[in-house]
Order: sequence, then structure tokens, then C-alpha cells
Amino acid sequence: MSAESGSLPAKVAVIGAGAIGGGWAALCISAGWPVSIYDTSSRAVEDAMEDIPRRARVLIALGRATPGIVERGLQEFQQAKSLLQAVRGADWVIEAIHEDLGAKQRLLESIEQVTAPEAIVTSSSSGLAPSDLFARLLQRSRCLVAHPLNPPELLPLVELVPSEETDPQAIDRAKGYLRALGRMPIVLHHAVPGYVVGRIAAAVWRECIDLVLSGAIDVSDLDRAVSLGPALGWAAAGPHLTYHLGAGAGGVHIFLQHLLTSFERWWGDLASWDKLDQGQQRTLIAAVEKAYEGKVDMLRTLRDRRLAAILRALEQARTT
Amino acid sequence: MSAESGSLPAKVAVIGAGAIGGGWAALCISAGWPVSIYDTSSRAVEDAMEDIPRRARVLIALGRATPGIVERGLQEFQQAKSLLQAVRGADWVIEAIHEDLGAKQRLLESIEQVTAPEAIVTSSSSGLAPSDLFARLLQRSRCLVAHPLNPPELLPLVELVPSEETDPQAIDRAKGYLRALGRMPIVLHHAVPGYVVGRIAAAVWRECIDLVLSGAIDVSDLDRAVSLGPALGWAAAGPHLTYHLGAGAGGVHIFLQHLLTSFERWWGDLASWDKLDQGQQRTLIAAVEKAYEGKVDMLRTLRDRRLAAILRALEQARTT
Repeated sequence: MSAESGSLPAKVAVIGAGAIGGGWAALCISAGWPVSIYDTSSRAVEDAMEDIPRRARVLIALGRATPGIVERGLQEFQQAKSLLQAVRGADWVIEAIHEDLGAKQRLLESIEQVTAPEAIVTSSSSGLAPSDLFARLLQRSRCLVAHPLNPPELLPLVELVPSEETDPQAIDRAKGYLRALGRMPIVLHHAVPGYVVGRIAAAVWRECIDLVLSGAIDVSDLDRAVSLGPALGWAAAGPHLTYHLGAGAGGVHIFLQHLLTSFERWWGDLASWDKLDQGQQRTLIAAVEKAYEGKVDMLRTLRDRRLAAILRALEQARTT
Repeated sequence: MSAESGSLPAKVAVIGAGAIGGGWAALCISAGWPVSIYDTSSRAVEDAMEDIPRRARVLIALGRATPGIVERGLQEFQQAKSLLQAVRGADWVIEAIHEDLGAKQRLLESIEQVTAPEAIVTSSSSGLAPSDLFARLLQRSRCLVAHPLNPPELLPLVELVPSEETDPQAIDRAKGYLRALGRMPIVLHHAVPGYVVGRIAAAVWRECIDLVLSGAIDVSDLDRAVSLGPALGWAAAGPHLTYHLGAGAGGVHIFLQHLLTSFERWWGDLASWDKLDQGQQRTLIAAVEKAYEGKVDMLRTLRDRRLAAILRALEQARTT
């Protein structure tokens, strides 16, 4: 049996009990896998021990998981009292603490000291260079970045970013685990700051912030415009394919002939700042809070319901 | 009865028989509205007279239109021999020729000369300033931009961009017509080059082109990453809402505390070029053509099926 199609992890250790770590845990639990979670903040773990079972069960309500399998996963879900206890017997250790290079490096060193050599170690970093993340480690060949989106238990994409020293077998094992979890792993050829998702998200959010701060459009109209416009289009066909289909039989070649002048005009006019000052942050925060005041819990539930419904729709469109 | 909730157009005139004009026509036909189409190229109109009925009927197969209503629309679908014949009796004239300011200005002048004063006139421009588009007209109060996405008969968003001289009643009538067509009109407070959609699309595509040209990722992996990652997320919740929900109860305020440093690092590193030279264009075209070689028709059908399935899913998520 090949490494990729092969064995599932006997246990997954998630280190970091925040939103992303909790999502990884809920996802693995929903597949019936034994998970143990650890965080240096006992408060964070206590909260997570309530939140993660809830998130795993929401997946049942959303039609993304099966009750019996989730309950089996929950029976084997453990709050670890130490890093050592967390990683004991784990084939896959997931680092999921906040985005701070020094903190991640120190944690990865500690993980290396206590983790069995057969385990693979993935970092959930959303944009740091794997060569920096794993710089202080001795066993770099088993380490790579596996960056999920938020919420990890619903969005299928996971970016895999190996360092130059990552063993191809470690990439294959990560791919195999992720596919078994229903995820869609994409491997970058080389690391760039923000990887693929962070860069595209940053490009979009800068423009969205700029459009709101310049008064061209309100927060909620802008969000709706992206949701029911370009995002819907890209969810059905990625950007390059969208434009390849956009000019009929002539493809992207004719599309560029017709619209490159427009794109070049817009590229020259897009927001190009790379800092948000305190005043701009305050204005942005106030505008977003006002747009969604009193509706955040409802909107989170609706977001998750929409995600689940879209995933179902895409699966049906593939099979019919 | 208010103008917005009020009467439907007795007839729609679409001027320009390309991909966008054809989409407008298919959409109006699918609502059972009388449509007449005109183009200075008789070849383009001949092609459109075959293509538009096909596109309207595809909407039935996709569950986005009702057979009886589409057939009623098709019975009243006319190929106009002249601009005068096209606009006669129309309450709504849609300009949908290629994106060229001078050509659009000249066409809009001709439209003004033959169109009844009660009709509204919308331009399908994807980014030109309404003050420029309508500069040569005498009756500017009835004119505004109504920019659809591609394909117009499937993607719900339509950007409305009035000029300073547009009468609010014309905006309301455009909104009313678009809502009756199942579209989601969004009104910009003031025009910016590329409006909202073009700017966001330009920001995304520049980064996507850069990631492919720099060798970080292949065309098809990138397209899949956007589809199953950020686009899926934004389709369920727009960018500002995504980040407002991204840091738990603390909202966008806490999100910025955690991740603004990352975003600022990425903003400083994003692609900032505003021209694609001939060599880059050739490389991009070759990469996109190779990624989708021999699969374009299948992918177009799949894209439309996915769009229809996602729209159905979003409607169900709203009502259940």
C-alpha cells in the first residue's frame, strides 16, 4: 500500500486550542479519529473542550458528518495535561498556535523533543516561510506547512508548503491524511510570503477596505457584491478559467485582446498602501461593527449553513 | 405603485450581440419579456439569434427558468434591422458593445436620438466613468451604468453606477427591472475606475498571474485553490464579514490585533506591476491553454451547472 493511499493516523495531536486548532480537532473527530489537544493556557483548553464537540456535532446537522462516526471520535477525544501526553502515540502532530514566528519555532522545538520520529509534523501558519519555521529543528524532513482556511472543518482547501528539506514521503502522508478528511490539498512549488491564499486574500481585502474607506460603497453592500458576484463566479471556475471562458471560443488570448487595456488601467489605479494607520483601523472597525451589529451569531450560523449547502451543491454538480 | 415595485418593461432593447448582450437577452427572455436585439455586424446578430435561444433554454435545464415563460419570451424575441427598430416601444435600452469609450459614446448618442424620452438607458461598461460615457448626451438623467457579470443570465450581481446627473427615479426603475429578473443590484455611491467588481477582479487576477509566472503554483492548482478556498468562503460571507467572524467573539477588532501584522507584510510584498509585456502575455496564454486543453466546452458546461447548483443551495440555505 502506498504511503498516500495508506494507513490513517492512529492518533492526531493538535497543539493550540484556538479557532484553527479547534477546527482541526472538530474535523478529525468528525472522521472518527482519536484526537488529543493541548494548549499552555488551561482556560483555552477548557473552552475548547466545550466548543470542539459542539463544532463536530454541527457538522452532523449540516450534513457533513455521520452521527455514529462523530460520537466514536468524541469518545476518543482527550484533553492532554502536557505536550508529552498530547503527542504520545500520535502519527500526526498539528501546530496551531497564533501567527508568531518565534513562538512557533519554540513550540516546534519542544514538539521535536517529545514526538516519535515516525510522526509527521505540520504547521498551520498562514504565511511564514517553512525554512524559517523549521530552522531550529534537527528532523526537518518530516515537517511541512498545512495551512487550512477558516473554518477548517468546512472549507476544503489546505495549502501544503514544504521546505526544501521536506521528504516527499511526508508530503504524500499529509496529502493522504487530508484527502481521508475530505480536504483538497494543493502543494506549492516554492514558498512565498502569505502562500497563495494569504496573498489573494490580502489583495482582495486591501481593495475592499479601500473601497469602504473612500466611500464608494458600504460594508454590507460590498460584502454582498463580492458574495453574489466575483466569489460566486470563482467558486464555480477559478480566475484563470473564468477569463479563459469569458471571451467565447477564443479563450484567454481573445480575452486579453479585449480587456487587457481595462485591466492595465485598473492595475495602475488599485490601492497600493501597505499599512493601516490607527485612524483607518478605527474607521474600518466601526464600519464593520455597525454593518453587522447584533447579527454576528446569526450570520455565523448562516455562513456555515451556506458553506455546507454550497459544498453539497458542488458535489452534486460533479456527479450528475 | 412606486416606480421600483411598479410596472415591468413592455420591451427591452439590447444593442450589441456579443457575450454580454446575448446574456442580457437570454435573461430577459427567460423572464418572458419581449426583447429585440441589434448589432451593426449582421454576422454577430445571426450568431446571436442561434445562441440566445440556446442560452435561454439552458436556464430551464439548470432549473433557473420555467419552460412556458421562456417560450413566451422566445416568441417575442426579435432581430432588429436597425437601431430605430430595436428601440421602438422599448422602456429599457441596454448598451452592450465592446469596452471602448469613444464607440460607446457614439452609440449612446445614436440611441438618444431614436429612443422615446420615457425609456431608461443603461450601459454595460465594466469600469468606465458614467460622467464620460454620458458626456455627449442631452438627456443624462435617465442614464446609468448597469454592469452585469459574465454570464449575466447566471450571476446575480449587477453594479449600478449613476452619474451625478442620473435621476434617482431612473436608478429605482433599473433596480426594479433587475430585481424582477432575479438580479441583485448594488448601487455605488460614486464611480471609481473598474467600479467594485473590476477592481477586486483586477487585484485577484494580478496576484494569480504573478503566482503562476513566478512558478509558485500551476494554473489548474491555483484555480482549484481559489475555487475551494477563499472564493467558497467569500460566497458564503463577504470579505469584511469573513474577518469579522474569523476571530470569534472579538470580531474584526481582535482579528486585526492578531493578523494585521501578517496582512501588512503581505501587502508590502504583493505584485504591484500594472503592465503585462508581450512575453508575459504569451507565457500566461500558453499556461492557461495547456491547463485546459481539450476541456473548454466541458468546463463551461460544468461552470454553468456549478453556478446554478450554488444559487439553488444559497436560496435553500436562506429559506430553511
